[in-house]
Amino acid sequence: MPPKKASPKRSLKPAPGMLSGGVALGRHILIENVQPSVDGGLFPVRIAAGRACTVQATALRDGHDPIRVELLWRSEAQKAWQAVSMHCINPGLDLWQAEFTPPKTGLHYYSVEAWSDAYLGWSKDFRKRVEAGVAELEGPLQEGVQLIAPVAAAAEGADKTALDAALAVLMRPAEPRDLLAAAEGAVEAMGRLQARVDAVRLDPPRALEAAGALAAKGAWYEFFVRSQGPLDRSRSGTFKDAEGRLDDIAAMGFDVIYLAPIHPIGKAHRKGPNNSLTAGPGDPGSPWAIGSEAGGHTAIEPALGTLEDFDRFVAAAAARGLAVALDFAIQCSPDHPWVKLHPDWFYHRPDGSIKYAENPPKKYQDVYVVNFDTADRENLWDALESVLRFWIARGVRIFRVDNPHTKPLEFWRWALARLKQDFPDLVFLAEAFTRPAMMRALGKVGFNQSYTYFTWRNSKAELTEYLNELCHSEMRHYYMPNFFANTPDILPTFLQKGGAPGFRLRLVLAATLSPVYGIYSGYELCEDAALPGREEYLDSEKYELRPRDWNAPGNIKGLISRLNQLRRSQPALGRLDNLHFTHTDNEQLIAYLKAGVDGGESLLVVVNLDRFQAQQGWVQVPLEAFGLPEQGSYRVEDLLDGSVYQWEGRGNFVKLDPALSAAHVFRVQRA
Amino acid sequence: MPPKKASPKRSLKPAPGMLSGGVALGRHILIENVQPSVDGGLFPVRIAAGRACTVQATALRDGHDPIRVELLWRSEAQKAWQAVSMHCINPGLDLWQAEFTPPKTGLHYYSVEAWSDAYLGWSKDFRKRVEAGVAELEGPLQEGVQLIAPVAAAAEGADKTALDAALAVLMRPAEPRDLLAAAEGAVEAMGRLQARVDAVRLDPPRALEAAGALAAKGAWYEFFVRSQGPLDRSRSGTFKDAEGRLDDIAAMGFDVIYLAPIHPIGKAHRKGPNNSLTAGPGDPGSPWAIGSEAGGHTAIEPALGTLEDFDRFVAAAAARGLAVALDFAIQCSPDHPWVKLHPDWFYHRPDGSIKYAENPPKKYQDVYVVNFDTADRENLWDALESVLRFWIARGVRIFRVDNPHTKPLEFWRWALARLKQDFPDLVFLAEAFTRPAMMRALGKVGFNQSYTYFTWRNSKAELTEYLNELCHSEMRHYYMPNFFANTPDILPTFLQKGGAPGFRLRLVLAATLSPVYGIYSGYELCEDAALPGREEYLDSEKYELRPRDWNAPGNIKGLISRLNQLRRSQPALGRLDNLHFTHTDNEQLIAYLKAGVDGGESLLVVVNLDRFQAQQGWVQVPLEAFGLPEQGSYRVEDLLDGSVYQWEGRGNFVKLDPALSAAHVFRVQRA
Repeated sequence: MPPKKASPKRSLKPAPGMLSGGVALGRHILIENVQPSVDGGLFPVRIAAGRACTVQATALRDGHDPIRVELLWRSEAQKAWQAVSMHCINPGLDLWQAEFTPPKTGLHYYSVEAWSDAYLGWSKDFRKRVEAGVAELEGPLQEGVQLIAPVAAAAEGADKTALDAALAVLMRPAEPRDLLAAAEGAVEAMGRLQARVDAVRLDPPRALEAAGALAAKGAWYEFFVRSQGPLDRSRSGTFKDAEGRLDDIAAMGFDVIYLAPIHPIGKAHRKGPNNSLTAGPGDPGSPWAIGSEAGGHTAIEPALGTLEDFDRFVAAAAARGLAVALDFAIQCSPDHPWVKLHPDWFYHRPDGSIKYAENPPKKYQDVYVVNFDTADRENLWDALESVLRFWIARGVRIFRVDNPHTKPLEFWRWALARLKQDFPDLVFLAEAFTRPAMMRALGKVGFNQSYTYFTWRNSKAELTEYLNELCHSEMRHYYMPNFFANTPDILPTFLQKGGAPGFRLRLVLAATLSPVYGIYSGYELCEDAALPGREEYLDSEKYELRPRDWNAPGNIKGLISRLNQLRRSQPALGRLDNLHFTHTDNEQLIAYLKAGVDGGESLLVVVNLDRFQAQQGWVQVPLEAFGLPEQGSYRVEDLLDGSVYQWEGRGNFVKLDPALSAAHVFRVQRA
Repeated sequence: MPPKKASPKRSLKPAPGMLSGGVALGRHILIENVQPSVDGGLFPVRIAAGRACTVQATALRDGHDPIRVELLWRSEAQKAWQAVSMHCINPGLDLWQAEFTPPKTGLHYYSVEAWSDAYLGWSKDFRKRVEAGVAELEGPLQEGVQLIAPVAAAAEGADKTALDAALAVLMRPAEPRDLLAAAEGAVEAMGRLQARVDAVRLDPPRALEAAGALAAKGAWYEFFVRSQGPLDRSRSGTFKDAEGRLDDIAAMGFDVIYLAPIHPIGKAHRKGPNNSLTAGPGDPGSPWAIGSEAGGHTAIEPALGTLEDFDRFVAAAAARGLAVALDFAIQCSPDHPWVKLHPDWFYHRPDGSIKYAENPPKKYQDVYVVNFDTADRENLWDALESVLRFWIARGVRIFRVDNPHTKPLEFWRWALARLKQDFPDLVFLAEAFTRPAMMRALGKVGFNQSYTYFTWRNSKAELTEYLNELCHSEMRHYYMPNFFANTPDILPTFLQKGGAPGFRLRLVLAATLSPVYGIYSGYELCEDAALPGREEYLDSEKYELRPRDWNAPGNIKGLISRLNQLRRSQPALGRLDNLHFTHTDNEQLIAYLKAGVDGGESLLVVVNLDRFQAQQGWVQVPLEAFGLPEQGSYRVEDLLDGSVYQWEGRGNFVKLDPALSAAHVFRVQRA
């Protein structure tokens, strides 16, 4: 045999919590799998302030001693942790749970601490002896006394009185049942006061961003201020005109008005109708070609009015319960003031000229792309952040960010963290229609909401798979979908055929599947004219004024109002993770439970995905969600049209004719 | 509006990799979800040395520039990383993959690095221009030249020649197709030589433990040396007697012989037959009551022989290709030398006496439990480690650890890391029959293998759920199941009724479902006598000598030999994550694919889970796994009994009569 080789001596006494990050491993105890968690705790979890955050952890120790587990939480400003006892909700899985509610917006931290409760272990052991009628209790009693005595000596007030009383019983001859009562009577105080000799804590703690209410729930309405003018298009609509739309929008029940960019529009290479290369003298140009001699990202396009008009519009909206969301598009027209002031913020050709945006062979000569890697990076980033601060100072708290996935993730992480530190109720919506990993990454680095693939998920299988991912994967902790049914860039193919029934069914899906959804104006009029073979609107509002008669016949404003009303009165529609699909025997009928939350009731939604034909079939009712027994009849009431049915058992028949209605939103009650 | 509040200035220039741990986020690039991973990278991944480790990562950047991704790996001893290009196996998911093979045992590290390939981006852009017939190529060409020129200047040898040649073409008027050829000809060299200006790397890297071959694959045979003596029990069996069994065990095809403890057995409170409290004068006692005047954990029970006999036994086993595994049970009989030498290593009563093990009202007076929290902790831990080093120095590399879950996880992490640093081929098997979180935790802190719940998973649903967890969850990266079909402590209820058919079917399951499995001696004789209502053997070998006629009629040694032979010749049976269940229409028939690995063929196993009745049904054949077309017939050959069938299509009929055979292990081939 070879002589044994000496191994370098390592410390025998690693500190508790020696493994840090996602787990904590101390002398005896392991804490792991702390949930909620985003990438193992590297990114903050996001939740609405005032909503309970349920924390779970696996916590265990070797041997047979019981452990205590505590949830610790605090706001960023607080130094002291608040402790909440965690309960073992599944002993077989060593699974512990507790919850805390961040009371207001801002960064919070939470952690989990666990330690052995030697006294509880002793008292359980003592109970076994007493119950088994073991005669020799003297030794065990002495052990109990040794555990209590030093704690009693250090205790104060009622604790001291209680522990001293327990000690007095345990140190005298007594009936076993009296001894046991005294021993167990001290468990609570001992659990609190005993030294936590082997305590271990998750370190660093997890971060949680408590967001504003509109980050977690809201109905959005998108419009172009310039299209709110006279129907004859004789002039651009203004903020003053737009004020006139506010009552209509408020009456439809929206929470957020999102404005297409309101900044001066460049004249160089301005695009004409339908994205044509040459604009006529009266063509207003694309509002995403930002900047002219009238100013850049902190100015108002003169045709819309003044900053004061903007302020008045924001105030008028607020008076009607409407928040204003602005578009933040980091790109410049060749006429943007920055082009002259900071030419080094843009990309240059070898000959020194500034490059316009290109996707060869396509040229976007009306737009210059910003170079985030410029040597003058610090000033560029500061300037961009200042743009947001400018509008924040004017009362704006919601920004829809144009194409954030073409700007560095690092920039967003930096800018959003800084801004939210001062204004924790800010809401950022990422308009990134790109690959899923990038869309998720934007949520991780700070965006509160994201556009989604909902627009292209039409079949039951597609909707079910996608919604289950959004509502039940790790994404639910940081990625809030904003289900826009259309946008100025996207008139989905699905809506281009079939008229109002298609618009109605997609509206019901958007408004009931996600706590945040939106429509772009014109949806209520079922506008469906597209460029041939594309998802672009014909005569797109992006390049011309598009005033409409907002009460034109065939509009679906009634359904919009009713859905938004329900979204306000039914807490179940304001939550993401309470969605559960239920079986129907018809592929064109999709049915889902929105489980009751915050004291509200559970709802059962059934939608006909076929916009052409009536569909019928059997829908499985998850009776337990409604507190209904397996047998007996019950009452379902369609909250959309007030119709009432008497149902029985799990399987019930539904027929939906798209000419009449797209869906049922059922309240389910005992008969 | 309130005046804007100044925000504290933070650094604008966070270093690349500013988020460390499970993800890396740099100026432009995010790397996340690096797999394999255990708890987000906090614990090492384990794989057999010489086997390829497939690494996947999600890597993405903002904008449209392409990225390059590299897998970096090294052994603990190496300083320099070895780089392997990762390939984008799913562009939609930004998923990259490469593999590396740790050539020998020991700790390894791996990481992922990604950076933007500006030149590749430029060349793709240039191709688009050329293909679109864009006339103005001068500007783009200059950009390409600006990228290549500095790299060419710094290049050497063939690279310099190639880059200079490309430059020469690009700087002269030429046909677009020639320009494009020159541009793309430089892609490979530029990809290697360009400065990685925005490189980001996962830091710290992931750890990987490359384990010895027997950690990942092996058939175990457990026996008591003392039972290998004369059938009349006139004396204890010895190591010399045990040597006589080696040919038999080797002939059955086992890889590991695991010996119940071989140390001196205490006399104080020695247990008699069937765990009775009083031993007779001839009773040998439980080998897990370790220590007597003859010595402790580093001594040999005198009745078995001497250390020299042990050495000879180990050498004789090795000569037959058998590795010897010892039992490491950290507990002492009251006669153990440590009790006198180190009384402070044990638990004490208030009166100063040493506590025996108890689970009130049960007393285990023959065993003292070690106190890992003793003030003399450093010496205790050192002594325990020294025990292992003692046997390692005598050639032992495999330890089955008794009840590791009642000792601190921290101890195992400390001891196993130290020992494996010197002897990376060590194998530790955890005998923890406890809750799943603790069983997983032992794997994470260093145990190579674990006992499992297999013993109690009998139905198709139970086996399917459990195996899918073991083979396809994160557990597969650190938790190697050792499927013991029985142990001296467990004669499963399932085996207590039905005789040989039950033993055969559980044997086939153990040997084909897991790369590591074992039986405790007596299994080959289908011994099934239990204490009434319990899973304890009647007249358990734990308390008495149990010599047997190992060739008694009715033994199943033929089947054992055949299975172990197949396990050696079929690489598919030596892998964990290549198991895929396939459908059968009979709940008593379980069928699974063991997909081909390392150049070996795929196998289809069908087992009748009913030990009483013949079962028949249709089995779905995953044709693609065997390279078979949807149509046409093929040949299946049962490798257990040589029978051959002609099958066709996906569904095929199987009938298995437990009186004749438990299972088919099919080779599937084109007719």
